[in-house]
Order: sequence, then C-alpha cells, then structure tokens
Amino acid sequence: MADRTVRAADAVIDVLTLAQDLLRTESVTPAQGAVFDILETALVPLGFTADRFVVGEAPDGPVENLLAVRGGTGPHLAFAGHVDVVPAGEGWTGSPFSGAVRDGLLYGRGAVDMKGAVAAFIAACAAAPAAIPVSLIITGDEEGPATYGTRALIDRMRERGLRPDLCLVGEPTSAARLGDMVKIGRRGSVNIWITVPGRQGHVAYPHLADNPVTRLIAILSAIDAITLDTGNAWFQPSNIEVTDLHVGNPAHNIIPGSAQARLSIRFNDEHSGQSLIDRIAAVAAAHAPGAEVTGRISGEAFLTEPGAFSTLVSDAIEDETGSRPELSTTGGTSDARFLSKLCPTVEFGLLNATMHKVDEAVAVDDLHALTRIYAGIIARAGA
Amino acid sequence: MADRTVRAADAVIDVLTLAQDLLRTESVTPAQGAVFDILETALVPLGFTADRFVVGEAPDGPVENLLAVRGGTGPHLAFAGHVDVVPAGEGWTGSPFSGAVRDGLLYGRGAVDMKGAVAAFIAACAAAPAAIPVSLIITGDEEGPATYGTRALIDRMRERGLRPDLCLVGEPTSAARLGDMVKIGRRGSVNIWITVPGRQGHVAYPHLADNPVTRLIAILSAIDAITLDTGNAWFQPSNIEVTDLHVGNPAHNIIPGSAQARLSIRFNDEHSGQSLIDRIAAVAAAHAPGAEVTGRISGEAFLTEPGAFSTLVSDAIEDETGSRPELSTTGGTSDARFLSKLCPTVEFGLLNATMHKVDEAVAVDDLHALTRIYAGIIARAGA
Ligand SMILES: [Zn+2]
Ligand SMILES: [Zn+2]
Repeated sequence: MADRTVRAADAVIDVLTLAQDLLRTESVTPAQGAVFDILETALVPLGFTADRFVVGEAPDGPVENLLAVRGGTGPHLAFAGHVDVVPAGEGWTGSPFSGAVRDGLLYGRGAVDMKGAVAAFIAACAAAPAAIPVSLIITGDEEGPATYGTRALIDRMRERGLRPDLCLVGEPTSAARLGDMVKIGRRGSVNIWITVPGRQGHVAYPHLADNPVTRLIAILSAIDAITLDTGNAWFQPSNIEVTDLHVGNPAHNIIPGSAQARLSIRFNDEHSGQSLIDRIAAVAAAHAPGAEVTGRISGEAFLTEPGAFSTLVSDAIEDETGSRPELSTTGGTSDARFLSKLCPTVEFGLLNATMHKVDEAVAVDDLHALTRIYAGIIARAGA
Repeated sequence: MADRTVRAADAVIDVLTLAQDLLRTESVTPAQGAVFDILETALVPLGFTADRFVVGEAPDGPVENLLAVRGGTGPHLAFAGHVDVVPAGEGWTGSPFSGAVRDGLLYGRGAVDMKGAVAAFIAACAAAPAAIPVSLIITGDEEGPATYGTRALIDRMRERGLRPDLCLVGEPTSAARLGDMVKIGRRGSVNIWITVPGRQGHVAYPHLADNPVTRLIAILSAIDAITLDTGNAWFQPSNIEVTDLHVGNPAHNIIPGSAQARLSIRFNDEHSGQSLIDRIAAVAAAHAPGAEVTGRISGEAFLTEPGAFSTLVSDAIEDETGSRPELSTTGGTSDARFLSKLCPTVEFGLLNATMHKVDEAVAVDDLHALTRIYAGIIARAGA
C-alpha cells in the first residue's frame, strides 16, 4: 500500500499530452495494439496491473480489451470506456489524427468520444490517493458491433472474481458545458421487421387478389394508435417510429404479393425488447394472419435510480463547476447497459456536440477540469 | 357497286389460312410492314381501299396503321382491332409463331388477341353483302403505349371526313365459351403517386424530426376508408389499390426524409380521372400539407348504354350460339374508350383465357363461328 501511494504521487500525468498520444494513434474500430500500449505505459507506473486480451474473429476482426486494476481498501470504483473510434470521414480542417491544438481546442477523431475522457481518468488516478481500489475497463469494440467488448470484459472480471461497487462510464454526456448533464440510465432500442404476405393479381380483378399493402396499412395505423406509456419520473415516453416501407413493385397494374415495414422503438424501463416484439406481433396477427414479425434488440433499457453514487458524482462536478448536473436518461444506447447489471452506474464525460462529426474537438480547459472532477469522484468513492 | 358485289362474292376467304398467315408474321408491338401487307392483300380484292400510314418516333419506334374502307349505302360499320402482339415469353410447347394446329386448336401469339378476330372479320366481309359500308381500323400500337395507334386512326378518319355510325371492337371478350360476353363499356384507370416530405432525424430525438411515414399511413388509412361508389346498373364499384410503397431508408436509426405510395384506381362512369386525382390530393393535403400528388390517367371510363347496336350484336350471337351474351363492363381498359366518343361501340371477340399467356390458342371451330357472327352483324347493320 505505502509503495503504491509513493508511486502514484510521483507520477504526474499531463492529460493533454496523454490525450494527444492517444489521438495520434489511429484506432478505428475494432482497435488493438499501439493504442493499448500507450494505456499500459501510463497505467503500470501508477500501480496498475494490466490484463490485455484479444478476442473475436473475422468479419468483425480481432478486438483488444484491457482490464487494469489497482488494489486497495474500500469500495471498488470501475471506470469504463473505449479507445476505438468511428472512421474520420471527409472534410476535416486539419488531419483527424494529428492531435493539433488550435485556439485552445484539441482536435482529433476520438477527442470527446472518448480518448479525452480516458486520458483524464488516468491523469486523475495519478492525482488521486493511491489507496483507493480502482479499475479501468477499456475496450476496443464499442463503436462497432460491440460483440467482443464490454461483455467480454465483464466475463473476464467474473472469472477473476472482481466485482466493482460503483461504475463510472466516461462517454461524452455533457451538452452545452462540461458538467451540465450526467446519465443515470438509457432507453432501450429494438428494430422490428413486419412482412405481410398477400396474393398477387391484376388491379382489374381485385377479388382474385389479396393486397398485402391494405393489411400493412391497417397494422401500421393500429401501431400508430398505441401509446406505450407516458414516460415516468426518469424517462421520456417510449416511442415507435416506422423507419422504412418496402414493396418494390414496378408494375402499375399489379397488386403486389408482399409488403414490408421496419420499425425502430426506443423504450424506457417499463418494457423489455421482447415484450415489444410480442406486442407488435400480436397487432400484426390481428390484421394479417400470415404476417412475419422479427425483431432485433440493440439494447434493453436500464436505470440506476438516483442515490449515493449519483450524488457523489454530482458533488464532484459541483465542486469544479459551481452547479449540479441534470440527471438524464436521454440519447442512444451505451455500454452502461451491461455494467448497470453489476452495480450502480453513472455516465459522465465531455461535451458531445462534436462526437462522430467532422472536426471533433475538446477544449483543453475541459480536459483539465474533467481530470479534477474525476479525481474528486475517486477521492469521494474512497472516503 | 355492282362491281364490288361481284368481287366480294367471288373472293371466298378461309379464316384459318388468313389467321395462320398473320400468326406466322411476327409483329411484337409496335407492328409495321409485313403483317399489314397480308391485310392489304386480303382486303383489296374485297373492294376495300387501303390507307396505310406510319407515325411515331423512338423510343416507342414507328407504328403502322391501316384504315381500310369499302363504301356503300346505309349505316357505316367500323371494325377496330390491332395486329401487334405482346412478346411471346418463354415456355411455349411449340413455336409461338408457327401457326400450328393441334387437336383443333390454332396456337400462336396473337391467336385470340387478336389476329384471329381480324382474320374472322375480313372473312366475314368476303361472305357478307358488299353493298354495306364497312371500314377496318387496324393499328400496330395497342399493346404498347398506344400513343400512335387508334387515336391517330381517329384523326385520320376526321381528316378524311369519315365518321362511323357503329363501331365493333374485336378484342377477346368471351369468357367461358364463344359469345357468352360482350363489353358495352369499360372502367377507367388512373395511377396516382403520393410523395410525403418529412424532416430526417435520429430516432432517439423524434421531436427534432417529422416522420413522413406516419403521415403517409394516415393518408392511406383515410383512402382505405373511402367508398367511391357502390357500383350502378352497368358497372362494378370503383376500386382503389395501393400498388407500391417506397421509403428506401437503409439506416435503422434514422427517421427518413420522404415516403411514397402509388395507387391504381379502376373507376366507373361516375368519376373522371381528374376528379379522382383531385380527391386523393385533398386527402393527402389534409394529413400532410407539403405532400405532392401526381396522377396519370390511362383511360377514362365509358359506356355505350344498351340499345339498338348491342341488341343487333346479341341477335347475331344468338343466331350462332343459341343464347344471348351478357353485356359487361368488366376488365381492363381498351381502345374502345376512344371510339365510343364517335358512335355506339360494342366489343366482341374470341375467348380471352389464353391472351398474353404461354400457348395462346383459339379453337378452329371458334374462328369459323366468329366469322359467321361477324357476317351476321354486318348483314344486320346494313338491313
Ligand atoms: Zn463512445
Ligand atoms: Zn388486344
């Protein structure tokens, strides 16, 4: 213990330099190799043991994950994040992998999503008392199919008998200024395909045909009339959108043989993905007995009800910014849905305005402020 | 006059041979040349003057039409037909252009639609009294876009000061046996496209988007609830079918920017094509202010109310078959819609069971029977 305290205190890490090192190492999803070398080089002098492992096969490609653990006493705080990034795309002002600073902004693919936050958390570990047990759960497969990422890390922790007490996910949750929003849950997401079979025929003889479009419209009208819920204390109402229609009939005089729709449902914690698939299937069956309904659940809804951990995070933010964050459940899915099954999970990170966009950038001041906030969270978790 | 009577009486035409000659001359739409040579060679000895003319340009290609006229006294009977055919397609038992007879059936593309009927009418002209004024209005552009066909022939007649008093269209109207059905009208046909614009956006933020599919479904539901009419003495109810839906959105998480539907309406004489386009446009505007509605009228509905001409045709049929035909307005559009503006128009021809199908065929007995019926119609028209 004493050993580690000394090492951590000695190793001061400059968050900007570390973030630049990470940004300059291209790691379009799935990530492996060099970008993890940088993490290991930074973490080992801070007293972490680095457990790196590669999983996965083509076509997704192999994925590297890192489970870095520093022991101690008291509650175990896990920080979860990723070092893979979405492709840079065209149209950047400079190189998306140069790590250049202009007018106080650090540019690069991954600056806010989320190499900046990973660097800030590591710098915070260097600054925080080393007696507090902390782990970093870092994946190279968050932006892709996420098949071999956080879930594999959770399996790895289980095999090693590690179970965090609190989990902080470093995704960019801030909206207008750093610290204005943390996420305590996320809606779930499911895509559903409805295929209605019919009997093809000539429009002049409709009694000999069965138009599947008529049935599909009836199904979609019934779905449009559904109110899944009206929201609750922590969630917006669940919402159904029809995102595609397809018949593909080039013949003006022919009643088509089949019609298809695709739905996207974002749902709160009052539903499960499967319950929604079943509900849509029942509506479809009522209007079109032969309809096929298939669903793909991207993620279930989850919620960490406000409590000691969200208060702790809010306190640390208020210390730095002077105001408390909004506790939100908006936005898309994140890997926090897996971690929230283990322990109270809160997401907090940089501004998300430029994530996945051209000229993704983070204010250098925000990197330093986030480092201080993260250090405050570590200190409070161990208090 | 005496001259002509003698020529007509001398020239006996074998309907089977003439039909075979026509079938052996490939004339996939648009037709010109050789198939018209056969008609001219047969008609001139019967006292007809043959006025052949070519109209049209690429991409439809040039079209030949024939206006053959034999003068006389009394009401002028026009026979309208076409010698172009739809493509043969794959899978015939023999060659679709061999004119082979097997088991009493004459096979070939166009056997019933409608080279057989054209041959029968010419043979009937040879058999009927030659003092009766008769014309043949034969186009090479009925199965295609029909831009340069019957309409051009009607213009030609107007230029020449010819106006028929009765018009017989030789399309295959018989259903189960020769003479069971004639058509005294046809429904109209219009195709309508509805395009609903929206505002694209992410499904996680539906309040920032405007899903055009939701509006399109509302429009199509309202259209589905419309009863255009309940039919009348001579027509089935008008009918709306949605024949295509299109969004074309590959992104599961994106609310699309536009959605489209295509309708086909078959309508009776209580509507016009434009009145239906206007009505659909009003429904669309009510649910989606920015919706675009465009229509293409394939043909207006028409009706020759039962009267002297349909009675005359029915009498001639009863003479041959022993029973009177049903007077019907079912089926698709035909060129009779243009001719019915000039004079009472009735459609009567062979069995339509094999039209546009593989192994299209006509019973040789039916060719002879149709020739006798057509001769009876000519004789009665002149009586
Ligand atoms: Zn991310
Ligand atoms: Zn035809």
